[in-house]
Amino acid sequence: MAEKLEYKKAILVICDGLTDRGSSTPLSEAYTPNMDRLASEGICGLMYSIAPGIVPGSDTAHLAILGGDPYREYPGRGPFEALGAGIELEEGDVAFRANFATINDKWEVLDRRAGRFGSSELAEALNIEIDGVKFIVKHTTEHRCALVMRGERLSKEISDVDPHGPGKVLESKPLDNSDEAKKSSEVLNKFIRRSYEILKEYQTPANVLLTRGAGAFRNIQSLEERFGFRSFCVAGSALYKGVAKYLGMDILKVEGATGRVDTNLRAKADALLSSIDRYDLAFVHIKATDSKGHDGDWAGKRAFIERIDQEFIERVLDLDAYIVLTADHSTPVTLRRHSSDPVTILMHGDGVRVDQVKQFNELSCAHGGLGWIRGVDLMPILADYMGYYRMYGV
Amino acid sequence: MAEKLEYKKAILVICDGLTDRGSSTPLSEAYTPNMDRLASEGICGLMYSIAPGIVPGSDTAHLAILGGDPYREYPGRGPFEALGAGIELEEGDVAFRANFATINDKWEVLDRRAGRFGSSELAEALNIEIDGVKFIVKHTTEHRCALVMRGERLSKEISDVDPHGPGKVLESKPLDNSDEAKKSSEVLNKFIRRSYEILKEYQTPANVLLTRGAGAFRNIQSLEERFGFRSFCVAGSALYKGVAKYLGMDILKVEGATGRVDTNLRAKADALLSSIDRYDLAFVHIKATDSKGHDGDWAGKRAFIERIDQEFIERVLDLDAYIVLTADHSTPVTLRRHSSDPVTILMHGDGVRVDQVKQFNELSCAHGGLGWIRGVDLMPILADYMGYYRMYGV
Repeated sequence: MAEKLEYKKAILVICDGLTDRGSSTPLSEAYTPNMDRLASEGICGLMYSIAPGIVPGSDTAHLAILGGDPYREYPGRGPFEALGAGIELEEGDVAFRANFATINDKWEVLDRRAGRFGSSELAEALNIEIDGVKFIVKHTTEHRCALVMRGERLSKEISDVDPHGPGKVLESKPLDNSDEAKKSSEVLNKFIRRSYEILKEYQTPANVLLTRGAGAFRNIQSLEERFGFRSFCVAGSALYKGVAKYLGMDILKVEGATGRVDTNLRAKADALLSSIDRYDLAFVHIKATDSKGHDGDWAGKRAFIERIDQEFIERVLDLDAYIVLTADHSTPVTLRRHSSDPVTILMHGDGVRVDQVKQFNELSCAHGGLGWIRGVDLMPILADYMGYYRMYGV
Repeated sequence: MAEKLEYKKAILVICDGLTDRGSSTPLSEAYTPNMDRLASEGICGLMYSIAPGIVPGSDTAHLAILGGDPYREYPGRGPFEALGAGIELEEGDVAFRANFATINDKWEVLDRRAGRFGSSELAEALNIEIDGVKFIVKHTTEHRCALVMRGERLSKEISDVDPHGPGKVLESKPLDNSDEAKKSSEVLNKFIRRSYEILKEYQTPANVLLTRGAGAFRNIQSLEERFGFRSFCVAGSALYKGVAKYLGMDILKVEGATGRVDTNLRAKADALLSSIDRYDLAFVHIKATDSKGHDGDWAGKRAFIERIDQEFIERVLDLDAYIVLTADHSTPVTLRRHSSDPVTILMHGDGVRVDQVKQFNELSCAHGGLGWIRGVDLMPILADYMGYYRMYGV
């Protein structure tokens, strides 16, 4: 058990895909006086969010960095999306990423994204029950939805309906020999056929729902159960809210937090500042660094990093709290994909062993006092700084 | 699955036992302008081929560095020697290191190495079948052979026949209570007696075969299955060819590659250069650094390192490929044995985070941008550089 000591608050800022390969990077070339001040006054290092050589997805990386086990506690993408969409999941639920699409009457996909159209009204119409299985559909953004199947003895071991390209809508098939997988795929196929019958009445481009990424939800220990502190999440994109929710964080609703370059970073900082009093840990997710990496937009990535420095970091700099600044994985603009290169990390606050690193970038952090840690190491280290530690042994 | 991107080639050079203890070492004192150029232009670090404090054997170290699991996928020495000798192993085969020896008619060992005599003809004569078990014997070098037992339900849990010193030839005994171990040891004992009857007819010093290091072969995932790339091996000694073969590498036959100080390093470089077009990864093994360490020959080790620099590294330096230069373990001349001291590693090629290390040696590499990795980390890191990555999560 955590002993009663003086507890401190902390802010964990994860800039998605922040870091790059090579010796001159958007981060190393960006003008970031606030990040550099934190680096100068703090302890720096590099972090493998999963393990050396492993190219992390955003979901597994966040799960690890936020204190979960990226192998044993990873439920697949579907449950994260459903949680992020605000659906309260129950043990045994099978959740999917889903999207509205346009098909013709031969079930050939004409547009996998239904012209990026979707609505809550359409999603609402698909909340039906088939053979004792409840279908819960929630619209998120554009053509995107989360879908949950709730019922007795369901299985996530079923294949996607989404053809992921041109062709006909697929039949979902069981991926193992269990009765549960057979039943789950059969009921899902019935639902997909019903979705067409229901949606075509609305006469929009969204005349069917396609599913992928089935995952089974189970309850895991919350951060509060693991460490004893209360935490909340400020994020624009559903996925990150979902991972946070999975770990028992509260999700703050922030107007203007979009998960895109047009996101309102000042609004996110203000939301954090107005809520941190009621919590111990704030997790802030900033997405567009990753998007700029995927776009291969070197100058755009650098410019967005400078915005983070000025519009976000500067506003939270003087808070009486530990500040941890890091990334979930590298998304080098030269690769336009995630890579296994370790990410930069800095920890700033009372008592950290201040090292010689003066700048927050890929090369300087390799000389930091924190050395090389893994994603799963971060939350225990931070919890100890905050005073929420558990001694192993006596 | 790895996405289709631009793929790059790589050369992995393992100098056996390259590194030492202490502050002035054969590697740090050697004149190695080519290695130092690679270090200056690349990223350096230290590597524990198994784990800190573990003194690696050459077999387990290579298994880990080449992408296998040194604990769960280690079959023992026998199968590596048999594979390296060119025997095609089958699931369930039990393989041994074997050597011709000289005994008298009381079965007392007069010379464990039969005056370093052996021949393919003698080995061939021992390819017999006893009680449904096939014995496959292949001569390698001097008095050395590989021996394979092939049959139903055999066990590797049997003791050595080789007394490893003066005394009588031992009876092989079962090492557990299984029927398989009982049967295997009985059949092996019959074979050893038969080997004497057969070999004494030839009237050479080699009048019996002694066995040690029983190991069971099973198929493991090849490097191509693990990562998607095709690889080949350039090595002089059977053991390293065996580990490479175990992981599905092709083995290149190189005239003059002896695994000794007299090895033709230029021929190895030329063999590599003439074959790399047909593959993605070349693994080159250079043995004599280890032998010089075991000999306690400081000057000889330094001189051989300088030869590697001039006769091998210089020839492959300008290839359009990643170059990784490392060792499997330290063999300090002061100890004349393997030690757990981490080995130096450098990675050179597109996009690596070039650090401040200018020289390739034990002390400078401790300040490198790669930090401290383990043997099992190397192949995933290299695969990601080469473009053969698999994302974990989405």
